[in-house]
Amino acid sequence: MATTTPKLISDKNEMRNWSRSMRAQGKLIGFVPTMGFLHAGHLSLVSQARSLCDVVAVSIYVNPGQFAPSEDLSTYPSDFQGDLRKLAALPGGVDVVFHPHNLYDYGHNSGDVAGEGGGPAASCVDGDGSGHETWVRVEKLEVGLCGKSRPILFRGVATIVTKLFNIVEPDLAVFGKKDYQQLRVIQRMVRDLDFSIKVIGAEITRESDGLAMSSRNVHLSPEERKKALSINKSLLKAKSAAEDGEVHCEKLSNLVIQCIAEAGGRIDYAEIVDQNNLEKVEQIKGPVVFCIAAWFGKVRLIDNMEINLSIGV
Amino acid sequence: MATTTPKLISDKNEMRNWSRSMRAQGKLIGFVPTMGFLHAGHLSLVSQARSLCDVVAVSIYVNPGQFAPSEDLSTYPSDFQGDLRKLAALPGGVDVVFHPHNLYDYGHNSGDVAGEGGGPAASCVDGDGSGHETWVRVEKLEVGLCGKSRPILFRGVATIVTKLFNIVEPDLAVFGKKDYQQLRVIQRMVRDLDFSIKVIGAEITRESDGLAMSSRNVHLSPEERKKALSINKSLLKAKSAAEDGEVHCEKLSNLVIQCIAEAGGRIDYAEIVDQNNLEKVEQIKGPVVFCIAAWFGKVRLIDNMEINLSIGV
Repeated sequence: MATTTPKLISDKNEMRNWSRSMRAQGKLIGFVPTMGFLHAGHLSLVSQARSLCDVVAVSIYVNPGQFAPSEDLSTYPSDFQGDLRKLAALPGGVDVVFHPHNLYDYGHNSGDVAGEGGGPAASCVDGDGSGHETWVRVEKLEVGLCGKSRPILFRGVATIVTKLFNIVEPDLAVFGKKDYQQLRVIQRMVRDLDFSIKVIGAEITRESDGLAMSSRNVHLSPEERKKALSINKSLLKAKSAAEDGEVHCEKLSNLVIQCIAEAGGRIDYAEIVDQNNLEKVEQIKGPVVFCIAAWFGKVRLIDNMEINLSIGV
Repeated sequence: MATTTPKLISDKNEMRNWSRSMRAQGKLIGFVPTMGFLHAGHLSLVSQARSLCDVVAVSIYVNPGQFAPSEDLSTYPSDFQGDLRKLAALPGGVDVVFHPHNLYDYGHNSGDVAGEGGGPAASCVDGDGSGHETWVRVEKLEVGLCGKSRPILFRGVATIVTKLFNIVEPDLAVFGKKDYQQLRVIQRMVRDLDFSIKVIGAEITRESDGLAMSSRNVHLSPEERKKALSINKSLLKAKSAAEDGEVHCEKLSNLVIQCIAEAGGRIDYAEIVDQNNLEKVEQIKGPVVFCIAAWFGKVRLIDNMEINLSIGV
């Protein structure tokens, strides 16, 4: 089904029509939402969708709804032509790249409520009159970890993913475990709002030296990049210590915090939480995930590691 | 297409499969969500869906998510067999009645996030452990009018309608103008979340004496019911006064408030608002709607009247 040159779609209705014509032909539709500047991590998600579905759509859209005014929306890296080349070069390629201009611009007289709103919107969180006012909140999962320092992040993520799901209408969507909290937010939202979409969590792709792949890595200086290796190294140490019998989370956290601080990183959080509800755990008794966010210079990196000890509860 | 005996479906997946099989046959799918205890107002919505679509699904589900613990969930009237008879007796009937047991009960290991939650849930707002935590908020439209005294109402409405839209997957849905704020909340939500669903607002159906039809009218004593006529009467007076040149909203509101108070009603709100954004209007310059909520005994009634003066802005 797939060709190596993806079809480019920027219009919502054209996107939905494509998807519906695929469904009418009995094709299983896979979807990978991205913000572009694709790296091997993204491509692994696409390959997974490719292996599980008949056709694959990838969206490339930097979502203004998940950035606070103080955050890095304006400097978020992009390379659209490079992204297209990378997607085309994948075995099987992808069928569609959905690349909308502004998903919060409803124009005048759009929708069923006429009148107010409309016009191009630079950011939907600036109160610029685009009129967008509907937000999906996953009220418990959105608050901890990254939600503490980025309180509107998951509201923005859940909302844009709802919009994309309603436009692309996929059967299956792949999200990376790199953004572990995001994955859980989306899975919970899909369940609670009765989306008929299977959500797959894909393993983290790392550079050969262990750094988790991220579009933001490009902003690291060579020195910062070296220091940032302390994240993965310390997570591996903590995992190993847990496997050797250290089940007290405070001790494991301190080990990681110290290692990252010594390397020159500034910790945002380092928490061991339940893999499902992301609630903080004092002592490891079941499947947990060690989640970290830390600043190296002006770059905030996140990473995590699942720890699955073979202990009975 | 329709038969006079509707197909009864209580399972989400069966409902979605029916809808998808209809879509695959090229049928346009109409949908009317209700909380049951159907009266002529509901039936007019169904007839409108019938006239615009090839097949029609009606849901009957009292949504616990939109009732606060203090509200009348437990006494909300129901008559499921009567509802089925009324729907079957409509010209053309309806094709499906969707009658789920509990749309907030995800069971154990349901969805993609395993573990917590599950079990039968009496109400999803009681913190009973059903695990539902995702809510759709239409942040501006949800706050005024009924949102003032019922702060979780529209959060619950927007969320259940999202769930029903994702289960029924209709092309068109009909909502009554009786619940004017609800209609605007749903229209805005459909636009903002990119649902591919046309939302139709249907005119209010009234008893021969002018009382707006409502499932809650059954709780009025004969005396209260008589007093409640003051709502429609005063709205007609206000509309007439506006048409005669009285464009100051405070004066029009006072007229209505006085009339209802004299009849023995207790006003919750009486506001003239913009028809689209529901913002309060000082002076009528465009299409407005006069919205009222008032208590008669233990029954809270709502009603409204659109006022469309032929004045240029």
